[in-house]
Amino acid sequence: MMKLFSGFAVALLATFYAGQSALADPLPSWNDTEAKQRIIEFVETVSDPGSENYVTPSDRIAVFDNDGTLWGEQPLYFQLIYALDRLKQKAEADPSVLSSDVLKAAVEGDLGTVAAAGSEGLVEILNVTHAGLSVVDYQADVRDWLDTARHPVTGMAYDDMIYQPMLELLRYLRDEGFATYIVSGGGLHFMRVFAEEAYGIPPNQVIGSATQTSYEVVDGVPTVMKDGNIAFIDDKEGKPVGIDSKIGKRPILAGGNSDGDFQMLEWTTAGDGPRFGLIVHHTDGEREVAYDRGSHIGKLVRGLDEGPDLGWLIIDMAKDWAVVYPKTAM
Amino acid sequence: MMKLFSGFAVALLATFYAGQSALADPLPSWNDTEAKQRIIEFVETVSDPGSENYVTPSDRIAVFDNDGTLWGEQPLYFQLIYALDRLKQKAEADPSVLSSDVLKAAVEGDLGTVAAAGSEGLVEILNVTHAGLSVVDYQADVRDWLDTARHPVTGMAYDDMIYQPMLELLRYLRDEGFATYIVSGGGLHFMRVFAEEAYGIPPNQVIGSATQTSYEVVDGVPTVMKDGNIAFIDDKEGKPVGIDSKIGKRPILAGGNSDGDFQMLEWTTAGDGPRFGLIVHHTDGEREVAYDRGSHIGKLVRGLDEGPDLGWLIIDMAKDWAVVYPKTAM
Repeated sequence: MMKLFSGFAVALLATFYAGQSALADPLPSWNDTEAKQRIIEFVETVSDPGSENYVTPSDRIAVFDNDGTLWGEQPLYFQLIYALDRLKQKAEADPSVLSSDVLKAAVEGDLGTVAAAGSEGLVEILNVTHAGLSVVDYQADVRDWLDTARHPVTGMAYDDMIYQPMLELLRYLRDEGFATYIVSGGGLHFMRVFAEEAYGIPPNQVIGSATQTSYEVVDGVPTVMKDGNIAFIDDKEGKPVGIDSKIGKRPILAGGNSDGDFQMLEWTTAGDGPRFGLIVHHTDGEREVAYDRGSHIGKLVRGLDEGPDLGWLIIDMAKDWAVVYPKTAM
Repeated sequence: MMKLFSGFAVALLATFYAGQSALADPLPSWNDTEAKQRIIEFVETVSDPGSENYVTPSDRIAVFDNDGTLWGEQPLYFQLIYALDRLKQKAEADPSVLSSDVLKAAVEGDLGTVAAAGSEGLVEILNVTHAGLSVVDYQADVRDWLDTARHPVTGMAYDDMIYQPMLELLRYLRDEGFATYIVSGGGLHFMRVFAEEAYGIPPNQVIGSATQTSYEVVDGVPTVMKDGNIAFIDDKEGKPVGIDSKIGKRPILAGGNSDGDFQMLEWTTAGDGPRFGLIVHHTDGEREVAYDRGSHIGKLVRGLDEGPDLGWLIIDMAKDWAVVYPKTAM
């Protein structure tokens, strides 16, 4: 009977630890403020079969912006830093690459001129740095860059500059049966390089902006190529469009940090039943960077003005987060 | 001790039945031919951790065309029958809808003229029947049509005209840890209406052609609208492009039935490690429709000529399938 009993003991212990982990703090890097309380209350109510706000697991869909919401975005979008690094390399090898004033301004660090050229200027930079190679080769190059490049202010690897409290939120949601998606203006192929390792979000749950791609047999090898030009911009009104296209359901939780996320939160929280919108407000000039209304990158006006009346949670980074990055004690 | 023992007995029974179901035939509607053997051998080898061909579950991705592969497509793509039904209804209510020769030909059943107008003709029909309404309203209308329309030859509901052997294959793959996707020239929003109930494939695993969509706040209600014009054609070279965009990994198994699937099978089976390509060859003029090289719909030439040399399995519907549809004894 010993064998039987030991099987029972294991089952009992498993039950005990499952109970323990449900009681453990799922968000240890969040301070005990209202923000944390509201998040936990929402997750508990939608995952409790006895609650009138219960949501079936297949409808527990959570979407998050990436730049400024899951990882940093200052002083420039990290993907733009990658593009400028690669543009400089290419120009050193072959100066004729710099065939326009925008490209020349970009390598000289004259970002005002680049910004003034708008999306056409950006396309010129993308055409030189993100096109004319296979998706596989592009992603190997991004991986190489992430492994070697360091942030100009923190000296950290870019894919270490992810927010520990948001990592905990992603894990907590998945533990409670949610599917977690990235829905970001960042590049689809770019983000997939690190999203699974950094956030536990697999390639099919990454939605992003994308250059056009094409299928070709190159020297006998079937290949998906990255071409120039932008096929889809996953920002503002593009976010609900991208979610409809790739997920096909309206999420019940959406998180962002800038006005580029407004429509995604608006659409998400306007649905029937329990809904949750959250905005990461960059209030922490000590541990990170404080910016909102006046910033070129991550500009946040409507979210602050209209979000609270729409029931959205405005997360005060300085007050609500005990830790910012996973690998530092900052 | 009785309680303990009964717990043990339940565990024992569960183990016993799990063993039984592993031994049961996973493809009972397939005849015992080479086709069935080759499919089972492939699935067993990639899911056996002791096999040199073992594939980790997150890479076990299977993609299937829909029209002619998972459900019928004769005498016309079912979605086109829907579009023509709706065009007739609209023209009865308001004859001015028929503003071009193509539209007039379409309601008169002159499909030769419609076909001659190519994709521009199709866009005209889509603009009248698939555009100018919300995704939610469009899908409710498709649901209504599926519930009431009947196939001109079989008299069956269209979403009952799915292939029982392919249903079993989809279930078998999922039981063995595969993610199953539809990758079809059919409409994304159209297929999502029935794909989950008919095939067990949820909306986020449906990849298809799509009209452009936009996000608008309509009378205060945040809405995703279907606009006119085609945003993406998920056929031929478009299929690897769609898979890269939405899945972000190369599948290890692909199934189709026409030359529109050639590039998807080519890309899938050219990858490293174990790969499987299969083509449903419509050889059964008794229980279904026999067609291949000469057919306007579901034309199959390259697959028959080049597929076998590429190692693809050509499924002979008449010989390999014991049953065609789930709800009939045909």
